[in-house]
Amino acid sequence: VAAAAGALSVAILAGGRGERFWPLSTPEAPKQFLALGGGEGRTLLQQAAARAEGLAPWDRRLLLAGRVHAALVRAQLPELPPHNLLLEPVGRDTAGAIALACAWASLRERDPRLLVMPADHVVPDPTGFRHAVAVGLRILDAHPSALVTFGVAPTRPETGYGYIEMGSPVPGVSGASWARRFTEKPDRATAERFLREGTYRWNSGIFLWRLGGILQALRRHLPAHAALVDRLAPVDAAAWPALLAAEFPRLPKISIDYGVLEKASDVAVVLATFAWDDLGAWSALPRVHPPDGHGNVVRGPARLVDVEDCIVVSAGRPIGALGVRGLVLVEGPGGVLVCPRERAQEVRRLAEGAEGP
Amino acid sequence: VAAAAGALSVAILAGGRGERFWPLSTPEAPKQFLALGGGEGRTLLQQAAARAEGLAPWDRRLLLAGRVHAALVRAQLPELPPHNLLLEPVGRDTAGAIALACAWASLRERDPRLLVMPADHVVPDPTGFRHAVAVGLRILDAHPSALVTFGVAPTRPETGYGYIEMGSPVPGVSGASWARRFTEKPDRATAERFLREGTYRWNSGIFLWRLGGILQALRRHLPAHAALVDRLAPVDAAAWPALLAAEFPRLPKISIDYGVLEKASDVAVVLATFAWDDLGAWSALPRVHPPDGHGNVVRGPARLVDVEDCIVVSAGRPIGALGVRGLVLVEGPGGVLVCPRERAQEVRRLAEGAEGP
Repeated sequence: VAAAAGALSVAILAGGRGERFWPLSTPEAPKQFLALGGGEGRTLLQQAAARAEGLAPWDRRLLLAGRVHAALVRAQLPELPPHNLLLEPVGRDTAGAIALACAWASLRERDPRLLVMPADHVVPDPTGFRHAVAVGLRILDAHPSALVTFGVAPTRPETGYGYIEMGSPVPGVSGASWARRFTEKPDRATAERFLREGTYRWNSGIFLWRLGGILQALRRHLPAHAALVDRLAPVDAAAWPALLAAEFPRLPKISIDYGVLEKASDVAVVLATFAWDDLGAWSALPRVHPPDGHGNVVRGPARLVDVEDCIVVSAGRPIGALGVRGLVLVEGPGGVLVCPRERAQEVRRLAEGAEGP
Repeated sequence: VAAAAGALSVAILAGGRGERFWPLSTPEAPKQFLALGGGEGRTLLQQAAARAEGLAPWDRRLLLAGRVHAALVRAQLPELPPHNLLLEPVGRDTAGAIALACAWASLRERDPRLLVMPADHVVPDPTGFRHAVAVGLRILDAHPSALVTFGVAPTRPETGYGYIEMGSPVPGVSGASWARRFTEKPDRATAERFLREGTYRWNSGIFLWRLGGILQALRRHLPAHAALVDRLAPVDAAAWPALLAAEFPRLPKISIDYGVLEKASDVAVVLATFAWDDLGAWSALPRVHPPDGHGNVVRGPARLVDVEDCIVVSAGRPIGALGVRGLVLVEGPGGVLVCPRERAQEVRRLAEGAEGP
């Protein structure tokens, strides 16, 4: 029989670099700290924290962010208890952040359940989101070692996302399947086939598990990560920063998807019904800000003459455009961006260059 | 017989608004105050003032500019004597500025000769320029009432310039013709015909005349301008500002080309051999800054990936461009500009809009 599981904690991953939203997103204030869409002017981070409302009180919400962003997090989330902000000395992708979250949660009780979600996505329907989490919790009740993912029904042959192929239904839980296979960023033809076949879901990057379940998987697939959890868990949180400074940079830099989920058994998929967007690039903006009659999405001061199907975002001075089509035009702290919408995925090449070699 | 003419004064017209160079050019610091090309980092105004070297000493160089730009002129031309800066309370195009120059010159001597030139053109060959002025002075010696223009041999069917059709040679002066007809901004087919026929020259906007000659023409064609010269000429310069504030705004706003030269007889054309560019729009930049191997002209910080045939100018933050062709991309105090090179002439529509309705 399954052991009784502990309370739910929510870990919000805010360590992303947001380079595809250069020049609005910069190393000093990446994407998750910007009000890019939804949430009536709130930043993506603030929206993510609010999404945990009703799932976990503030003292069970954990925020993982880069060390240089501590002040931004505190300014944007004044309600976050000081000990609930874990600062990563360097970025080690989602597996590293999740290891920290596991250690933090293990300090608090015996076998907590942990919901993990990115800080930089848009989920316009928090009620639908919480409903899906409830389905996930039912999976954990029936299958304590399950690693639960949330699969969003694809609406277009997106090549920038990860896909999960659904297998057999999870017994006793409606709206959930076991995962059969992960495919990260398929080519166009594959993405179109996935869309047609109807048995594939977008990997939302949101996960739910019991501490015991994820630790078992880490021990098998990412032993260095499991070892760090073991080092941190018995130590008082006051001693963590020094320990992290020494140990965290040694972790392999890998996502939890590549490092664990693609290899683990017992991976379940909640068939999510909530609207979701990872805002992966500037070209995603028209999905959260409907275009005007000329097909333009305009945020901030702009003067457009004979301009169509453009995404125009200014954080300051006006953007004047004349006689152009299908471009992304952005003015922000990092500089100025000009590129075709269909190449918005490549913007990080400019962000890197602009920051120096 | 011709009366003996007085000394040569040089009037530099710096009242332009430079709207086609938005957003680098702004109402606060228009085109002529920027280092847009040539002159080893000097501004166009500084280059124009230097062009008068050897033609007139500083106390015979006169600068006409908008009142709001007094500080900029003094900063860029510290050698200019204080009384040689005439400030226009409002812009009244070149005819208004030239009337002021006439009044100023008439304070100094009986029948001065006056060379008038715009502050915002590029003339990379000052020696050739002075040679052409010498030809013009010979025309005035022989024909005291002549209005001398400087015609540049066209090298392309430019539709943004004014053209002068040459008529019969000026007797006794080699390299000069009488003007037959002015055509402002011809359509493409006409400009191509002008180029083919070889009897047309670009109107450089540079003029030379004796005070008596231009006053006679003003009296006939622009009597309000002549009347202002008559009001100002007998009055001490200290009293001018008050008089100008009251009278100058009442002048019709008209260029000397439309107002006088197209109608006057005795208009001569010096067949200029100096290189000249009016830098009429961003698309002119490759003529003064040769493009790189990708056809790009780049000034200031930029990061370009798969970019060709673009004009990229930043006065501050980096411009990151990816996958675009044939665009003008500018970052400056007024904002950000994006438009195709071939529509650079229309940029003033954005400048106006960006400044408000």
